[in-house]
Amino acid sequence: MKLIFYDIPSRLARKAWSPNTWKTRYCLNYKGIPYQTEWVEYPDIEPLYKEIGLQPTSVKPDGTPRCTLPAIHDPSTGVKMGNSFDIAEYLDQKYPNSPRIFPHNSAGIQAPFAGAFAAHVKPIWNFLVPPECEILNPRSAEWFRQSREKEFGVARLEDITPTGDRRVKEWKKVERGFAKIDAWYAKNGGSGPFIWATPCWADFVVGGYLAWIRAALGEESEEWRDFTSWHGGRWKALAEGLKKYEEIH
Amino acid sequence: MKLIFYDIPSRLARKAWSPNTWKTRYCLNYKGIPYQTEWVEYPDIEPLYKEIGLQPTSVKPDGTPRCTLPAIHDPSTGVKMGNSFDIAEYLDQKYPNSPRIFPHNSAGIQAPFAGAFAAHVKPIWNFLVPPECEILNPRSAEWFRQSREKEFGVARLEDITPTGDRRVKEWKKVERGFAKIDAWYAKNGGSGPFIWATPCWADFVVGGYLAWIRAALGEESEEWRDFTSWHGGRWKALAEGLKKYEEIH
Repeated sequence: MKLIFYDIPSRLARKAWSPNTWKTRYCLNYKGIPYQTEWVEYPDIEPLYKEIGLQPTSVKPDGTPRCTLPAIHDPSTGVKMGNSFDIAEYLDQKYPNSPRIFPHNSAGIQAPFAGAFAAHVKPIWNFLVPPECEILNPRSAEWFRQSREKEFGVARLEDITPTGDRRVKEWKKVERGFAKIDAWYAKNGGSGPFIWATPCWADFVVGGYLAWIRAALGEESEEWRDFTSWHGGRWKALAEGLKKYEEIH
Repeated sequence: MKLIFYDIPSRLARKAWSPNTWKTRYCLNYKGIPYQTEWVEYPDIEPLYKEIGLQPTSVKPDGTPRCTLPAIHDPSTGVKMGNSFDIAEYLDQKYPNSPRIFPHNSAGIQAPFAGAFAAHVKPIWNFLVPPECEILNPRSAEWFRQSREKEFGVARLEDITPTGDRRVKEWKKVERGFAKIDAWYAKNGGSGPFIWATPCWADFVVGGYLAWIRAALGEESEEWRDFTSWHGGRWKALAEGLKKYEEIH
């Protein structure tokens, strides 16, 4: 029986779009673990957690539990878990004879990566979150809009979208954020588009964002074209290097 | 001719105290590179940069150049440089037959560490910066006080020291910050006190802070005793694991 991978669908041709679930999809594809995607709309995530008996991944600022995807159910072990980092560690331990997400036992040394990366590129959220409503299926879009309007404290989610001069300024901030990440990648021990000699967790974190940007803004957008030109084309090269791990099963 | 390592002295018995220069001292001792410390008081750092022809390591918020230690001068190559990360990379490249600060060519994957670590434990700065004036030699203490009062925007540096209930609350924040670092260390691929199988850059970053805390608060302080009891004694164990790399040449 194949591993079950729970992901959130969109209306886009390839459905997958979420930066967090993409991390897990990259991990599964990179390791070549047979899996089957189960698509779960936003309002169905918490019921799924209850149904399969998962502990919420975290707690919201208001104290209520937060249930998030990705999550997996591995029938070969009975293991069910959420949180992309924990899943990655589990996959490396359970499937040691496939390429390592954390080569050289580097889970500890890679643990700060996702948080450090997100802190630098956070200005991009305001560009990506509102358009998500347009790519989600109606039930998810409605749920997502309500949840995020509450979280961001705005009347309409579109209020967070930078416009006019502010959009130019905020986009510059995004570029400066990615410049920091570019400096990390520039220390690359390997020669390819990845941060290390082989693809690893850090690349899947950045790759998840690349997939999210592409999904939310569209490959035809001016921003996507601009983005892929930054830093000597590093992000374009990384996106291309990750393409072979983007199968959707 | 030995490598020259520029460090900032204190009045403490072992002189060394700075979290940034400790990183480099750990690197040099860990790799077993013969070196000689040249002690430089704060007001003499900028003149030193001019004298040996170093570029300022960064720029202050007001646009003026910032000259910082550590810096090194390696007479065997003529190389002179500042910035502890750049120095670490140089040492691994120039002295490849000694233990690696960045094992498995991990400079890229370790590059986010210092920033991510400092962001989590920043609440400790207000505890450590004012007491620095008491451990520095008078010329450095005076320079440091003026510079930091300007930077923190306070009339007296002691104004940033948390007191009373706030001190208790802020110390809790420090503990929560180190709890994040503890979670990274808990993923340890090795079995020792280090974040990886062997000591590496990340340990020297945390070790630099441990040395700073010990120097600024004193080993007899209530805070140091509290700190070394946190997280199953992890920081005490790390401090002990790093002791053999603390020679002062």
